Formats: sequence, structure tokens, C-alpha cells
Amino acid sequence: MKKLINDPQDVVAEALLGIEAARPEVRVDHANRIIYRRDAPKARKVGLVSGGGSGHEPLHGGYVGLGMLDAACAGQIFTSPTPDQMLEATKGVDAGNGVLHIVKNYTGDVMNFEMAAELAAAETGITVDTVVVNDDVAVQDSLYTAGRRGVGVTVLLEKLVGAAAEEGRPLSELAALARVINDAGRSMGMALTSCTVPAAGKPTFELAEDEMELGIGIHGEPGRRRVPLASAREIAEQLMEPILADLDFSSGPLIVMLNGMGGTPLIELYLMYGEVAKIIERSGIPVARNLVGNYITSLEMAGCSLTMLRADEELIRLWDAPVNTAGLRWGI
Amino acid sequence: MKKLINDPQDVVAEALLGIEAARPEVRVDHANRIIYRRDAPKARKVGLVSGGGSGHEPLHGGYVGLGMLDAACAGQIFTSPTPDQMLEATKGVDAGNGVLHIVKNYTGDVMNFEMAAELAAAETGITVDTVVVNDDVAVQDSLYTAGRRGVGVTVLLEKLVGAAAEEGRPLSELAALARVINDAGRSMGMALTSCTVPAAGKPTFELAEDEMELGIGIHGEPGRRRVPLASAREIAEQLMEPILADLDFSSGPLIVMLNGMGGTPLIELYLMYGEVAKIIERSGIPVARNLVGNYITSLEMAGCSLTMLRADEELIRLWDAPVNTAGLRWGI
Repeated sequence: MKKLINDPQDVVAEALLGIEAARPEVRVDHANRIIYRRDAPKARKVGLVSGGGSGHEPLHGGYVGLGMLDAACAGQIFTSPTPDQMLEATKGVDAGNGVLHIVKNYTGDVMNFEMAAELAAAETGITVDTVVVNDDVAVQDSLYTAGRRGVGVTVLLEKLVGAAAEEGRPLSELAALARVINDAGRSMGMALTSCTVPAAGKPTFELAEDEMELGIGIHGEPGRRRVPLASAREIAEQLMEPILADLDFSSGPLIVMLNGMGGTPLIELYLMYGEVAKIIERSGIPVARNLVGNYITSLEMAGCSLTMLRADEELIRLWDAPVNTAGLRWGI
Repeated sequence: MKKLINDPQDVVAEALLGIEAARPEVRVDHANRIIYRRDAPKARKVGLVSGGGSGHEPLHGGYVGLGMLDAACAGQIFTSPTPDQMLEATKGVDAGNGVLHIVKNYTGDVMNFEMAAELAAAETGITVDTVVVNDDVAVQDSLYTAGRRGVGVTVLLEKLVGAAAEEGRPLSELAALARVINDAGRSMGMALTSCTVPAAGKPTFELAEDEMELGIGIHGEPGRRRVPLASAREIAEQLMEPILADLDFSSGPLIVMLNGMGGTPLIELYLMYGEVAKIIERSGIPVARNLVGNYITSLEMAGCSLTMLRADEELIRLWDAPVNTAGLRWGI
């Protein structure tokens, strides 16, 4: 295992030290492994909390800051944070307007956020609403999930609902908006290689030199099928086809994210985006905004995922609103 | 070779299609493989041109846009662009105020930019000045270079001089500023793994499972020495020590970049930045600004480089000025 780490057990704790040193817009509660927006709790604003296993950076800690999350709970690598962390974060961001939990659909995350919401209600009286993101069209159930997994739409949702929260909208409205966004987005991913969880010390799975995995999960959990290594052009078709089959995108301009899994160079991501853009162009649906880069990763896995969101004028407006985080920054 | 590509010969041309599709702030001359700022040539402004081999993305094409470059010439992977490309870009960005060539110190790049500057003077009368970036403290001469190589400082220089160019400063002043910045910055890199140039189809070099290479170049050219794999803490010391030995940084607040080589996950880069920040903190020199991420890469190489720039109030002001490119974006 070749990694820029000290002790495999300390990776998350030490990465949090680095994030704190690097990013002026956040502060870190190291005991609870929570990254807070520096000025949380923010008056006259619903608190937005997300979190999950580490290893998907910049998700979620890199999305804490003005215009996105108020707090992110960092679990061990590919492991859900605990209800205690989530409860603490919920208390830390509540300014009396309630808190929205943004949860990727993995069994551990869903259970723990649910418990945290119950504890918050019982112990503190804080109102919590929850949106569960489940945009991955690859598989219905999988290793860590009942139902669809939550992947790339999480990034877009955190941006869009974050912008709406800055406008002082109430919790019920933000939760409804979050559900609309989740319902309007779909993702599909693929891997060329596995990744190595530091504490495990060896690759999560093996892929032969002439194979790739379609529909891979962000923890290396199995996808739809192993297939022969294909060209970028074919891969773009293979990612797009199940997405388009699953939802009618024809009504709206799109927000498209071509996301790297962590170990794929940007030149390949741009090349892939070119292939994706050609297919979308043939469909006649305009792309209003896009992201190309590493936004929701699986450590050093090579591969990519495609996320498509059916937007409208209001969502584009929220997209363009100022954001100041490690992972997304503009307008500031 | 597992890559998201079609034909290895088409990687650069097809990545340019993707960049063009993704980024509204640029237009691409595909015949000459030049990425232009969309509104180039920009009146009342010196044109900034850079370029080099591809495979280092976002450098340079990802730094074209308001507040940074006016044009970037894309060579084949790890291969200098031609003088013809550079001449064409020079003509394309000149608005009558002259053009600054920002050149990383590699023999091919330096020769070709020199020839392009001569052709520009002879054929068009455009005044060209050139700054050669040579910040890499690792080796004095190397496989592709006489003298020090140009690496991470290039990113910071393109940002800072780009901001100064937006203010309408004359060519002579921008060239002088660029040289001051180059002289005030130093870098040192390391690799855990090699990378594979698509046209070659196999790794550029081999590193054993228990080895790393200190002082690696951004094309995989040899560094100072192969050493046993070390902890992030030790690597931070090994990168920092030759940088601090080479230049006195004590007078200024720093701009620090902890750069990923392309295949290293962000969680490791943050962890590394935490180690670097601890060492800098002991020195008592304040860090004014920092970047942590993939800014000047070597395809999918795993590893990182550290760049330190001795700044002052004026450089910090230029750093904070608006920038709108694929690789750096704020204030817009």
C-alpha cells in the first residue's frame, strides 16, 4: 500500500487537521470529527448537516461553507459516522430554525441519521427534517444499501439547497426542494481500478487488465456487471443509456457532472465530458451548467461517474448563487 | 493500460473538445491546439500566453480565462508545443500592448517559445517578453532541462501576473513582476508511483512497492534519489528541507501550494498539508493563502509537490483578485 499517510488508523483525524489548517471558512471539532462552517450557528438560517464515510473528498467536508453545508460529520473511511456525531453537529448548527439532514442512501448512514434526528427531538427539541439521496441507477439493492445508492446528486443538492438556505427559507420548504432535486437527478458510475482502504491495506476488489466494472458504487461495492474494457465513447454511452432510460430529462436544461473517482487524471475526465456532451447534444436538451473534476470520489479509484440533473430557471439561479467551500467556490 | 480514452493518438485533441464543451470562458482553435480566453484579444491589456506538454491538467488550458492566461498552447502529452502554435497564440492575444510568454524551464519549451518570439517580432512586429520559470530545487540539470525545472510556481505566477495584467499594466512591468515571483518561489516533488503516457502504453518508470522517488519531475524524469517509502510526516520534512535551505522565506507571509500529482486522493493531500502546516508554524512564518489539490499534475502519478512563495501585501492583493478559469475560480 503506497499512500501519503502516517498510521492507517489516523488518516481521518490527520486529514481533518489539514483541512482546518487550509480552509479559513471552517472550524473543526476534532473530538467529534465535525467540520463546521466557521460562523455556525448562523442566525435566521436553517442548518444543513451532511456526512458519511470519509474517502469521498471533497464530499462532505469540502462542501462546508457559505452557500452549502453548515456542518459535515466525518466517519472512518467508507464507514458511517455515529449518531452521536450527527446529534452534536445538529446542535452545533441549529439557530432555532431547525436542521436539514442530507443523507446518502446507505443503510448505516440512514439508520444513524434517523437515530440522531430522534435524539435531537427528544433531548433538545430541535426540529429535524431529512432528505435521503438515492440517485444511482446502477443497482436496485447492493452491498450496503436497500434501494438505490446515493451518489453524485448529493453534490448538486448540497449546492442548490445550500443556496436556498442562505435566502432564509424555512425548513419545510428546503426539505421539499431537496426532494424535488433528488427526484430530478440520476447518476451512473464505472471503475477501471479498485482502491485500497488504508486500514485494510489491500485493494477492495480486483479487476483484470482488460476489465472494467459498470455501475460501481463509491465504496467499491459491486455494480451491474464486469465488462471488457471499452473506449471512452462506448463508456459514455454505457453510463448515459441507463440514466436516460430511467428519467425523462427532455423538459429542462441540464446540470451535468462528470465526476472523477479520485485516481483518473483531469485530461481523461475532459475527454469523457466531450463524449458525454456529444450524446447530449444529439438529444437536443441544453446543458446549462456543468462540473468536470473530482467531486465525490472513492480514494484513488480510477474511473468516473456521470450525474444528470433536470433543472429549471430557479435551480440555475440557485446554482449561480455565491458559494465558498473547498470543493466549489464562486461569486465570493 | 487502463484509461478513459479512445485512440491513444487522439487524447489531446479529444480532451480539447471536452474543455470547449465544458467551459464557457474559453474557445478552442482545434487546428492549432490553442485554448483562448473567449474574448481574446482583450483591448488595453497585455496578452499572457503559456503552454507546454499536455498531461499536467489543469495546467495550462485550465488556467485560461479572466485573471489568468489569454491563451495556452497544448502539446502532445509531455511534449512541447511547436513554435507555430506559440506564434499563432501570440498573434491571437495581442491587442497592440505586447505579449508575455510564461515558459516552464524545459529545453523544448524554452527553444520553441524563443523561436516563436523571434518569428513574432520578424513577421508581425508584436513585442514579446518571456519569463522562464525554474523553481524546482530537486535537481540542477535533468533529463529534459538545463538548469532547474519549472513546476508549481508556474501556477501561482500565472494567477498573480494574470491579475496584474487585468489592471492594464505594461508588458515591461508584468515581465519584471513575473521574474520577482519566480525568484521568490521554490518547489519540490515526490512520487509514489509512475504514470503511463497513452502513446507509450506502459509506465514511464518502475518503483518498487517499498520505494518512492524524491525530487521527481512532472514528466516522471528522475529526481534526487529513490528512498524507502516514508510516512507523510517524514515526506513533509523531506520536501520542505531543500526548499527552506535554498531560499530565505522569513520576510514574507507565504502562499503555499500542496499539489497532487494526479492519482493521489484529496484526503491524503489534506493530511500532507496538515504536516506541512505544522512545520511552517514552527518556523513562525505566517501562511497567507494556500492551495491544496491537483493543480499541476503528471497524468495519474501518485505523489505530491510542495510549492512555497514568499509573498507581500501586493502579491496577496493580486492573489485575491477575481479569477475565472477551470482550475482557479473566485470573486466572479
